[in-house]
Amino acid sequence: MIDMQNTQPTYALSLKKVGINDLILPIAIVQENTDLQHTIANISVATSLDENHKGTHMSRLIESILSSCEKIEQDTLKNIAENLLIRLDAKNAYISFDFPYFIEKKSPHTQKIAPVSYSCKLTYQINENKHSYSYTLKIPVMTLCPCSKAISQYGAHSQRAFIDLSVTINEHIHFEKLIKIAENTASSPIYTLLKREDEKCITEQAYDNPTFVEDVARNLAQEIHKLKEIHSFTLSVESIESIHNHNAFASIDSSSFL
Amino acid sequence: MIDMQNTQPTYALSLKKVGINDLILPIAIVQENTDLQHTIANISVATSLDENHKGTHMSRLIESILSSCEKIEQDTLKNIAENLLIRLDAKNAYISFDFPYFIEKKSPHTQKIAPVSYSCKLTYQINENKHSYSYTLKIPVMTLCPCSKAISQYGAHSQRAFIDLSVTINEHIHFEKLIKIAENTASSPIYTLLKREDEKCITEQAYDNPTFVEDVARNLAQEIHKLKEIHSFTLSVESIESIHNHNAFASIDSSSFL
Amino acid sequence: MIDMQNTQPTYALSLKKVGINDLILPIAIVQENTDLQHTIANISVATSLDENHKGTHMSRLIESILSSCEKIEQDTLKNIAENLLIRLDAKNAYISFDFPYFIEKKSPHTQKIAPVSYSCKLTYQINENKHSYSYTLKIPVMTLCPCSKAISQYGAHSQRAFIDLSVTINEHIHFEKLIKIAENTASSPIYTLLKREDEKCITEQAYDNPTFVEDVARNLAQEIHKLKEIHSFTLSVESIESIHNHNAFASIDSSSFL
Amino acid sequence: MIDMQNTQPTYALSLKKVGINDLILPIAIVQENTDLQHTIANISVATSLDENHKGTHMSRLIESILSSCEKIEQDTLKNIAENLLIRLDAKNAYISFDFPYFIEKKSPHTQKIAPVSYSCKLTYQINENKHSYSYTLKIPVMTLCPCSKAISQYGAHSQRAFIDLSVTINEHIHFEKLIKIAENTASSPIYTLLKREDEKCITEQAYDNPTFVEDVARNLAQEIHKLKEIHSFTLSVESIESIHNHNAFASIDSSSFL
Repeated sequence: MIDMQNTQPTYALSLKKVGINDLILPIAIVQENTDLQHTIANISVATSLDENHKGTHMSRLIESILSSCEKIEQDTLKNIAENLLIRLDAKNAYISFDFPYFIEKKSPHTQKIAPVSYSCKLTYQINENKHSYSYTLKIPVMTLCPCSKAISQYGAHSQRAFIDLSVTINEHIHFEKLIKIAENTASSPIYTLLKREDEKCITEQAYDNPTFVEDVARNLAQEIHKLKEIHSFTLSVESIESIHNHNAFASIDSSSFL
Repeated sequence: MIDMQNTQPTYALSLKKVGINDLILPIAIVQENTDLQHTIANISVATSLDENHKGTHMSRLIESILSSCEKIEQDTLKNIAENLLIRLDAKNAYISFDFPYFIEKKSPHTQKIAPVSYSCKLTYQINENKHSYSYTLKIPVMTLCPCSKAISQYGAHSQRAFIDLSVTINEHIHFEKLIKIAENTASSPIYTLLKREDEKCITEQAYDNPTFVEDVARNLAQEIHKLKEIHSFTLSVESIESIHNHNAFASIDSSSFL
Repeated sequence: MIDMQNTQPTYALSLKKVGINDLILPIAIVQENTDLQHTIANISVATSLDENHKGTHMSRLIESILSSCEKIEQDTLKNIAENLLIRLDAKNAYISFDFPYFIEKKSPHTQKIAPVSYSCKLTYQINENKHSYSYTLKIPVMTLCPCSKAISQYGAHSQRAFIDLSVTINEHIHFEKLIKIAENTASSPIYTLLKREDEKCITEQAYDNPTFVEDVARNLAQEIHKLKEIHSFTLSVESIESIHNHNAFASIDSSSFL
Repeated sequence: MIDMQNTQPTYALSLKKVGINDLILPIAIVQENTDLQHTIANISVATSLDENHKGTHMSRLIESILSSCEKIEQDTLKNIAENLLIRLDAKNAYISFDFPYFIEKKSPHTQKIAPVSYSCKLTYQINENKHSYSYTLKIPVMTLCPCSKAISQYGAHSQRAFIDLSVTINEHIHFEKLIKIAENTASSPIYTLLKREDEKCITEQAYDNPTFVEDVARNLAQEIHKLKEIHSFTLSVESIESIHNHNAFASIDSSSFL
């Protein structure tokens, strides 16, 4: 059977990444408390392709992933990436897992517990022999507008906002820790389950603590910058403005500290 | 050249709808003030197919649409639908155009003018010789929580919410009229362009006028029910809760008035 | 603390559904082989609201769901729905769980096993004391165009297509059974992991078995109609046409058999 | 009235970008033939914010955009960006317009004309006094698998694929030219309106011209590299594989030519 992939391409050009996107698989990931959390990942996996091969062997990329999904630990993505370099005789490798991650959260007054969903993405790259591991988190929060509060006789508009935080790590840091830090930089965290006493608590806390997207971005940058586990970061805060049909956003990265 | 579509199907079953989805085309639609508004539509067009034909002729469906996009008037969809019945020798026809529609809106205090975008969908059906024409509008508004206001010492959480209103008409009614009615049933309309004086105005208005999604749904149902142009309606209000990572919604239809 | 929800609404109108959308939670569901499958659901839960209450108690809706997610069995949604009627003193209840469901599938020649993801939705309703339970499945398949094959000297365009099958059940039927039936009505099933021998197999099978979306719709309707577990159905087949930038679709429901 | 935005932030950190996202507005853009094309843009506009200001003035960002939408010419985004620097006293500015763009395309045999929709994005940045202008195009094409063709006795699977091409320009180049170049690098272009004679033509052309995503990426890189109007580029090709429920992709950028 002919192996078209192993023939010469028309143009002898090396490709940055060749692989698959949008592969949906069940995974289990080790939590901060060492329990396994079951979730569903949208996976991308690719390697570079040199100028002498027409195509890659896509099925090998999938086989490299399949055996590792049952328990994602700190070294799992690194191991997959290193294995890919050998298996596909490639120079560079790229893997990402994008999944909802759940944290049990207590409501502020009645202490009711319910899971909150956060979008998480793990990205491992080997590029020219350099390894880099990134965590990307999308964290819903509430922002209450400082301008609206200051200029109005009463009230202040608030809305759901999202923090997109991407960190390249020096060493492992738990999602739980990053999420807790991020939630405390906005007007209030958000929750899945709230009783009226909790709602009163959050309403007043947000009013006492108004934040522009600019404030949340600076507050969080200041905190992330302190963490020794983090090599570099980019972050963006986007609010679903309740007075507009468009969003407001602010972004900053670790270069602001150079 | 063989016409496979005209051969007998394996199973002699009639099909409800056969056609195309997700066709993107530029259109122009006549506004309330008779000016043409240029926009982009996502179009679906289909007819029924009887039990003696294996397939439809998709290109005819597209040709029926292409010639009509330059000026969408009150009778345009009806004409396309009737033309489809003849051209495809079909019993039933179905057409929908889904597009953003813009209305110039003045801010409440400084009177600054800027367009606001609304999702609109026109749906025309001929089914067993009965014609029906529906307008579906998605209208962004602000809701401010009456419970949060009542129980808190100060402040009240607010958020962007969306009204989904679908009306089957007896006679034409302008989008502009339906949108204005809908916007006045929530805590506040939203705007594209606001100066600080406007923001103060909206903040205070929303605080003075708290609404649950349930309130907005009832307020709007009450108003739509009065309109002689409307034969029947369904509506749903969904708020992007600022204290949660999920949405709250309420729905009602014209059967509540029977 | 004031209970605003229990006050009278401005307009004494009953609401069809009041509840929450877009609640993301981990669930576990019992498979055909009785093993538990862990997945992530997008949940909607609502009840009707009578004309004498301004608002519902959203937190009770969530509490009704939270305790049931660890093991979704045949009666779980029914139990949640019945519990909601009591807990919220409501006449009607509505619950849906939308989640990816995985089936281990063998490739046709090399018998390599890998999970394929299918979108599934369970919907339970109690409406005017009538109960109805629906399963909705989105099943990816391949269609190869009979017209293209018939008129061309060689080749025939093919593409990924999706079957959307919604059945209201008389009694439980396994997803696995419905999915297998559906996959056999198209030109070929699709797979996660394929070796070249498998690819040859599928390519030739699809060419031997060309199907319009119309054919797939009729083939599947014919099969579903025979199942005693099914009370009624609607189905639609949509292909991501490889020669167009729009999709082709065909739909049919159980009324074609009346 | 207090100007909160002009107060000092808690942390004296400069922000990369502060602005708005997801602003939907009608625009008109000058075509290759100098006619105006009306379309709808999703707009993002932002500036940097120095360490001495708590917030930006969002309404000024919108005002800068509103007056320019009626006729987008070659210098329009540059003018908006330069104006933003002055109006917001900022160091850096960023603007993007994302919109469908239509080209009238003749079918290959019957020469039927119909518009095809392409996603286009214009991005203008002034960063540390350096200006850069990028065009990003999403171009649907057909790929037919060379491996499937080579190993099968008859047939070959094909599918819709998308080319994502992003170029930073030295001087203006028409979308029409870039799109035509891109479409000729795949197995076949796609069309809105095709008669059977056209379908035969495309089916046979695609079978005669099989391409992996890797081939399309290399073919297009080779062509783009030759264009004197282009300063640098990145491109990715992603196919909606008809035999899988995931996509295949390949990417390359101008660094492969260094």
